[in-house]
Amino acid sequence: MISMENSVEINGEKGVGVVDHYEKGDGTDDGVVLGLDGGATSTVCVCMPFFPISESLSKPLRILARAVAGCSNHNSIGETAARITLEEVMSEALSKSGSKLSAVCAVCLCISGVNHQTDEEKIVRWLRDIFPSHVKLYVHNDAIAALASGTMGKLHGCVLIAGTGCIAYGVGKDGREARASGVGPVLGDWGSGYGIAARALTSVIRAYDGRGPQTMLTNKILKVLGLSSPDEVIGWTYADPSWARIAALVPEVISCAEASDQVANKILDDAVQELALSVKAVVKRLALCGEDGNGYFPLVMVGGVLEANKSWDIGKEVVKCIKELFPGASPISPQVEPAVGAALLARNFFINDSERKHP
Amino acid sequence: MISMENSVEINGEKGVGVVDHYEKGDGTDDGVVLGLDGGATSTVCVCMPFFPISESLSKPLRILARAVAGCSNHNSIGETAARITLEEVMSEALSKSGSKLSAVCAVCLCISGVNHQTDEEKIVRWLRDIFPSHVKLYVHNDAIAALASGTMGKLHGCVLIAGTGCIAYGVGKDGREARASGVGPVLGDWGSGYGIAARALTSVIRAYDGRGPQTMLTNKILKVLGLSSPDEVIGWTYADPSWARIAALVPEVISCAEASDQVANKILDDAVQELALSVKAVVKRLALCGEDGNGYFPLVMVGGVLEANKSWDIGKEVVKCIKELFPGASPISPQVEPAVGAALLARNFFINDSERKHP
Repeated sequence: MISMENSVEINGEKGVGVVDHYEKGDGTDDGVVLGLDGGATSTVCVCMPFFPISESLSKPLRILARAVAGCSNHNSIGETAARITLEEVMSEALSKSGSKLSAVCAVCLCISGVNHQTDEEKIVRWLRDIFPSHVKLYVHNDAIAALASGTMGKLHGCVLIAGTGCIAYGVGKDGREARASGVGPVLGDWGSGYGIAARALTSVIRAYDGRGPQTMLTNKILKVLGLSSPDEVIGWTYADPSWARIAALVPEVISCAEASDQVANKILDDAVQELALSVKAVVKRLALCGEDGNGYFPLVMVGGVLEANKSWDIGKEVVKCIKELFPGASPISPQVEPAVGAALLARNFFINDSERKHP
Repeated sequence: MISMENSVEINGEKGVGVVDHYEKGDGTDDGVVLGLDGGATSTVCVCMPFFPISESLSKPLRILARAVAGCSNHNSIGETAARITLEEVMSEALSKSGSKLSAVCAVCLCISGVNHQTDEEKIVRWLRDIFPSHVKLYVHNDAIAALASGTMGKLHGCVLIAGTGCIAYGVGKDGREARASGVGPVLGDWGSGYGIAARALTSVIRAYDGRGPQTMLTNKILKVLGLSSPDEVIGWTYADPSWARIAALVPEVISCAEASDQVANKILDDAVQELALSVKAVVKRLALCGEDGNGYFPLVMVGGVLEANKSWDIGKEVVKCIKELFPGASPISPQVEPAVGAALLARNFFINDSERKHP
């Protein structure tokens, strides 16, 4: 897998990218693009100078400004609050960049919770109240920004995201999109961090009440949670419904699997199969692998579950499993942060739209 | 399986029991016992005349009064509210029976959420503020009342409850108790109504996104939920976190399985294995089956999932699966409602305690 090129610090926060310099408030003559990655936890907006198609991406990327805000998922906090967050974080990025609103030529927002065309259209209407009619506006699911963060703005291939939740999202050469998983814990995202950890907790209970084999997970998990008996795992589990709190136990599962615990190994093996299955489903539906099944396609791998980089490497096993069926799958780690991916998409969409109008 | 003996109506509500008459407000000379079954939805308290050990249970049971209140699970509504509910429902049952507080000789409360000795001791202290020191007080988990509702107050055997949730609970001849499952959806009560229905919803999503085979469940569930696309199942699922709302889809799964849908059949087969496994774990830990594994023990079967009584009969399959390992398992349907089971326990505990003191 291609490793991350470098890591840069912008405004005191760690970012990931091939960006090698950050220009504060110097504006730009060719106009700017805004890229935004919005999730249930935080929202990041970057402002990049527009650069024409003649300029290669191999040159270091220039980021003019970066702004961070809270949740912008309208399903999570409601439409009004989401809209305010989006407006404020874009305004801050523009202001920090020293650019005027009139300099903006394209905006690409990639936000979790945007699942239907009706969601996209609603948010485009919000944006149209801010940006004049010549500004190109694009709204997508946040998985698209993750895909672009690996393909450097090219909208083709599949992204697999596995953190607290998991989703596989793909875009075909014909522009068709498809997704698999990304449906939360009740509906069986078993390859997610939450899914892995919930099964580990379940294994502790099953060993305790006699339904399952003994496992190292019991002592490991009781210790890290500060509990004295598996009984108490029940109370701990339901005391707080946060999915991320449960998903945080993934490192304990990996650690037990590395120590040859069979139960932990089975949980990780199953998660690998589940994650690979999500990608395979998307690749098949979009025929990303070409007619013979051996065609090349980029596979962007994102999220804590895939980046564990331990001797039990979930990401590596998932790739192995996918390559057995689709040898042309080409795994890529994110090259830039998702918001920069969104900005690159804004730039590319803008160029494509212009070419279509003035070929 | 022994069927329910008859069904009686008390205070306009349907009950289940061998009770054949209900005496209102006539009091009793020998004293009374109170039996209470408390859950997350409702709490039922019955007042029964005490009858000595010389009187056989084969005579019709006499119930003096029955009172119903809301939730009394202290984990669910808090200690203060639970305590008030318990006090009020016992007071109402006593008052309806025409008995005085001084007539009470024993009280048995079986309440969900009572999992540790500390819970039992706390509730006994609440009761001690009401009842004088000669009154015998017993507090247990509500599964014990369900067991007693099948064994008519004998505290021996195993009960399997499978409704929205599921639990197996057993008591050995030596008085030892053991449970399996009963840990909610996050920790894998996969044989419960919730577990069955959540897997059915998951199968609809997996068929839709290409991860799983097509299934009749898709049309069946979309129709009953009034949805037009499997996409919309995600929104429906997370719109309301109630477990019972999801569990209500079990009949659709049974209906598809009866129509030979392979996915639905696999879900029910797995649920049967899970439920049987819970019972087997309890039976093994308590050696309910004797030393040779063939000994008789009562197996009380309770809850909507086991009582479906369709051509695909989950309860029947569970029993078959248990009997393969433990041929002495003797399935029983509840003979009385759980609160009456609790009252019979109160009577039996009282007699046993008296015998121990005055042998």
